[in-house]
Amino acid sequence: MCRNDEIHRKVSVSIRRVGKSGSASTKSTAQTRAQHLGHEDHSRSTEVKLLRHSLTNNSVSKHSSQSTMASPKLIVHHLQVGQGERILWLLEELGIPYELKLYERSPLLSPPDLQAVYPMGASPVLEDFTDPNNPVVLAESGAICEYIIHKYADGRLALPPSHKNFADYLYWFHFSNATLMSNIFRRGMARGMVGENDPRYQGNASRVAKALNHVNNRLKTTGAWFAGDEFTAADVMLGFCFTTMRQFEPIDLTEYEEILAWNQRIGGREAYKRAMKKGDPNLDIEAGLSAKGPPMHEAFAKAVGRK
Amino acid sequence: MCRNDEIHRKVSVSIRRVGKSGSASTKSTAQTRAQHLGHEDHSRSTEVKLLRHSLTNNSVSKHSSQSTMASPKLIVHHLQVGQGERILWLLEELGIPYELKLYERSPLLSPPDLQAVYPMGASPVLEDFTDPNNPVVLAESGAICEYIIHKYADGRLALPPSHKNFADYLYWFHFSNATLMSNIFRRGMARGMVGENDPRYQGNASRVAKALNHVNNRLKTTGAWFAGDEFTAADVMLGFCFTTMRQFEPIDLTEYEEILAWNQRIGGREAYKRAMKKGDPNLDIEAGLSAKGPPMHEAFAKAVGRK
Repeated sequence: MCRNDEIHRKVSVSIRRVGKSGSASTKSTAQTRAQHLGHEDHSRSTEVKLLRHSLTNNSVSKHSSQSTMASPKLIVHHLQVGQGERILWLLEELGIPYELKLYERSPLLSPPDLQAVYPMGASPVLEDFTDPNNPVVLAESGAICEYIIHKYADGRLALPPSHKNFADYLYWFHFSNATLMSNIFRRGMARGMVGENDPRYQGNASRVAKALNHVNNRLKTTGAWFAGDEFTAADVMLGFCFTTMRQFEPIDLTEYEEILAWNQRIGGREAYKRAMKKGDPNLDIEAGLSAKGPPMHEAFAKAVGRK
Repeated sequence: MCRNDEIHRKVSVSIRRVGKSGSASTKSTAQTRAQHLGHEDHSRSTEVKLLRHSLTNNSVSKHSSQSTMASPKLIVHHLQVGQGERILWLLEELGIPYELKLYERSPLLSPPDLQAVYPMGASPVLEDFTDPNNPVVLAESGAICEYIIHKYADGRLALPPSHKNFADYLYWFHFSNATLMSNIFRRGMARGMVGENDPRYQGNASRVAKALNHVNNRLKTTGAWFAGDEFTAADVMLGFCFTTMRQFEPIDLTEYEEILAWNQRIGGREAYKRAMKKGDPNLDIEAGLSAKGPPMHEAFAKAVGRK
């Protein structure tokens, strides 16, 4: 099935900046394919540069089963300063090649180019052209992680049903978006709408504090990763919530020592550094991992009246 | 591995009503086990009755692979009028036996008995005592669905990575909680906090309308189920959003004909009817499936000043 094993040892990343200031020059193969799927012309894209990196991630050679699979042809659409960083990070951890399209917020939400790829206008979006008879456009970061892991990585970075921590893996993976992110954003929403003295804000703040303690306690138990001793995609899903997401709803982690220590562990991973450098080269990674967190996203702070 | 094939042909349901008016009589095996996990005594539980049903669901006999698995010993904790109905429905579809513990809202959120099972106090919670060396307490409806499907149902009601609709399955499964439910609840929150004339409410309402159109268009494409021709756990995850959840944030489905037709399809499934009857015997199922939706939950309507 594998058309070219060598491709697993390289990452082919086409970095594009797409946004309010972009202008069209040429169309990529992906753009042409996207039109076959009924999408609009990505006429505001500008190709900036094409990078080829040698992969230092040795996880590929450890997992010989990967050589039995087709070389995927993946495009990741990532709205910068957003949860799309999870997908880049996952792919870097797995050593799976991908093309990367970057979008700037315009001014805060998705630019029209990204909305043309996925009608809901959310990021990340994965396009998969591996099977020409079944091109795929997939959104939802949780769905994309599962898709990549089970379709192209032979289940790596997930735990199998036979693993004693299978339930932990699933719980923390889903907890990320279904509970934690929505609770944190609701707190921010309540602050903006009724203010911090309102009992409705306080109810939301109390739920967030409960969730953060719950997370901190989990990390105290494992002393390592969310699913247990092994780093998994559950960590990838949660990483965004304690780093970059704090640009939209600040969380001081000073009192959450275990989360902070875990932040330092993810910051030490080469795949994380590569992903952040490729996806958000202008971000201060250290600030994102720190106790006080990164400064608020400027356009967002203005939108919610905090600047 | 299978200790007792016959158990797959029966559903052993211990229905308990637990809530503000409950009082203790005896402890179940499960309660004793829960204490081993460091949980408090379920001292307010009252066993009402023990039912044994013959399963008419022929999915068990169709899938001989199930006979190679251990008989699971599962307890589902379901806070009534809530997303726990998904888990009952899934188990009924799969023909997997379970014990059911019902909790009444007190007055709106989880009673202390449920919080003793799962510190975040959310429902549903699954306890799995199949492996005495590795008792499991698992929350998050998405995680529980995946756990049951991949641990005890040989992947039934999920699509495998080789299936052409694998991405669709994952997308709609995750869309349910990560995007749709959070968008709908944010609309309700904005209405309560700033009112329908505020542009922030209108922004949220617009996102919900976009999501509903997106859902309706998907069902128009398949004419059947979310992942395609086959009924899957993605339908189970989304069912709650268009039925019972409307007790907390009303959605008139009159203009969403495809969603309404899909509601009628799920309402025609015997497993759905059995699950709703066991989990929420006092609910009017037909109202939940209807275009106008069910009446608002009384305690919730009072809490948000709509009654």
